[in-house]
Amino acid sequence: MSPQAANGLIYPKLAVIGCGLIGSSIIRAARAAGAVGEVSVADASPEHRQKVLELGYADLVTADPAEAVRDADLVVLATPVMAMSGAFAQAASALKPGATVTDVGSVKAAVVEALKPLVPEGVFLAPGHPIAGTEYSGPEAGFAELFQNRWTILTPLPREDDPYLEAVQRLVDFWRALGANVDRMDEKHHDLVLAVTSHLPHLIAYNIVGTAADLEEVTQAEVMKYSAGGFRDFTRIAASDPTMWRDIFLANKDAVLEILGRFTEDLQALSRAIRWGEGDKLFELFTRTRAIRRGIVAAGQETPEANFGRDHRQ
Amino acid sequence: MSPQAANGLIYPKLAVIGCGLIGSSIIRAARAAGAVGEVSVADASPEHRQKVLELGYADLVTADPAEAVRDADLVVLATPVMAMSGAFAQAASALKPGATVTDVGSVKAAVVEALKPLVPEGVFLAPGHPIAGTEYSGPEAGFAELFQNRWTILTPLPREDDPYLEAVQRLVDFWRALGANVDRMDEKHHDLVLAVTSHLPHLIAYNIVGTAADLEEVTQAEVMKYSAGGFRDFTRIAASDPTMWRDIFLANKDAVLEILGRFTEDLQALSRAIRWGEGDKLFELFTRTRAIRRGIVAAGQETPEANFGRDHRQ
Repeated sequence: MSPQAANGLIYPKLAVIGCGLIGSSIIRAARAAGAVGEVSVADASPEHRQKVLELGYADLVTADPAEAVRDADLVVLATPVMAMSGAFAQAASALKPGATVTDVGSVKAAVVEALKPLVPEGVFLAPGHPIAGTEYSGPEAGFAELFQNRWTILTPLPREDDPYLEAVQRLVDFWRALGANVDRMDEKHHDLVLAVTSHLPHLIAYNIVGTAADLEEVTQAEVMKYSAGGFRDFTRIAASDPTMWRDIFLANKDAVLEILGRFTEDLQALSRAIRWGEGDKLFELFTRTRAIRRGIVAAGQETPEANFGRDHRQ
Repeated sequence: MSPQAANGLIYPKLAVIGCGLIGSSIIRAARAAGAVGEVSVADASPEHRQKVLELGYADLVTADPAEAVRDADLVVLATPVMAMSGAFAQAASALKPGATVTDVGSVKAAVVEALKPLVPEGVFLAPGHPIAGTEYSGPEAGFAELFQNRWTILTPLPREDDPYLEAVQRLVDFWRALGANVDRMDEKHHDLVLAVTSHLPHLIAYNIVGTAADLEEVTQAEVMKYSAGGFRDFTRIAASDPTMWRDIFLANKDAVLEILGRFTEDLQALSRAIRWGEGDKLFELFTRTRAIRRGIVAAGQETPEANFGRDHRQ
């Protein structure tokens, strides 16, 4: 059975709170898919609101979350994670019964904990996280294909009642209409998986670019000039939105520190192997990691048109 | 004045010792540019020799470096760095007077130190390093465009005599004919710059992919599935040739350990900032690293067709 409304829309009215790269891409993708009718946007930044108006993303653009969510069937929280509960608290009383509230935060346990007490009776909270992005940010960075063949992870609440399950299923259908593959998992497990596959890589990239910038013996110009040797990939990751990433590390502190601790131990062992000339240990690791890459390529997770790092310059 | 021979070739005969990704790309690029006439290849691996024959790269394919370098005007050492002096020692007595010997090693001080005593009188040693590569290896991975708009760093000996300077200039012309930009620097400075822009990034990538593979709570399948969040870029770097990279870390030990020490200090500070919720420190770093990326993009060092990470699958 299709959960679509009589008019063929999955959600007649969509409200997006926080319209940066992800929020604007959701609007573009949902419109391209014919999944939504009316769209309203709330954003705390006057510059963002101006851009959203210029780009014609929304029927209503406002600073007030309550105004944006009125009559909305789906509310997407797409602010940095630390700002989500504040924005939602302003909107909660204006939500219509039966509405679904989701988010796109890269951290789930802390977000669920913050949002859960604020959700009114009869409104369905179904947290989510689309694993897609670029190093660009702001409403003008959005594009409809961002979620194509990417994974969106939903971390539904432990509820088994039919209305809730139907609301979650409708959200699954929405993400599929946007081109995403959808998975479900427990929010704590999500946070650990993402600490490995995303948060630690970003932390490392930020750190190495910072270390390079602080060297006295090597000029910034040299670092840039010879960055093709591997460093350039790190600079792209380290160009991601600072506010978003600050919030992620603070909100997923425990999992990040746990994985970072293991990484540091391993790095010290590697450092020791280099110092003592233990080539066999290096070779063994480098052979193992190569096999992992081949697994990723074989699994079709790597494609030439991969969205992350996509070049958006005109 | 053009240094080209009467027949328009920069080097009538090219010998490549070690025909992997870089060696085979040099042959392809030099042929495409009409820079060389005859080509001979020496390689210790029977599989490589078979591939080189099949691909028609060379007029002569042999296991014996001395046979390959006979009458050669340019000899390119393109084995892993630890194997270079051994291969060169076998070839040295067969070199013709006036020949130029260069290499493509990612480490320069250790290579120069090993090769210098082996170079016969009247032969010109002009070490070099093309900063280009992919995560693929072997003769079949080579392609003529690998060096296009990439930097090749030459680290000439401190000699000021005309014959030597002319030999170096001819090598500069050769690399330019292959599409590369050419820079010169002191070999110790080269090793420090590359420790930052290439060796440390590779070490970090190898390490993080290894750390992820060892986790008990997160499956390999999950790591692959959700790698779009940043991890995937690391897996590509960590798929680089294990022998080549083992040798680089051993041969550039001092510079790598120095930069790694700074990286680790910085990472510990970052870890502490996360533990104590010091969002301002994180934000400050993340803003600074973003500016560096913009510098690289503005300097034109990032192009959509960047060679590193180029997808070679058919």
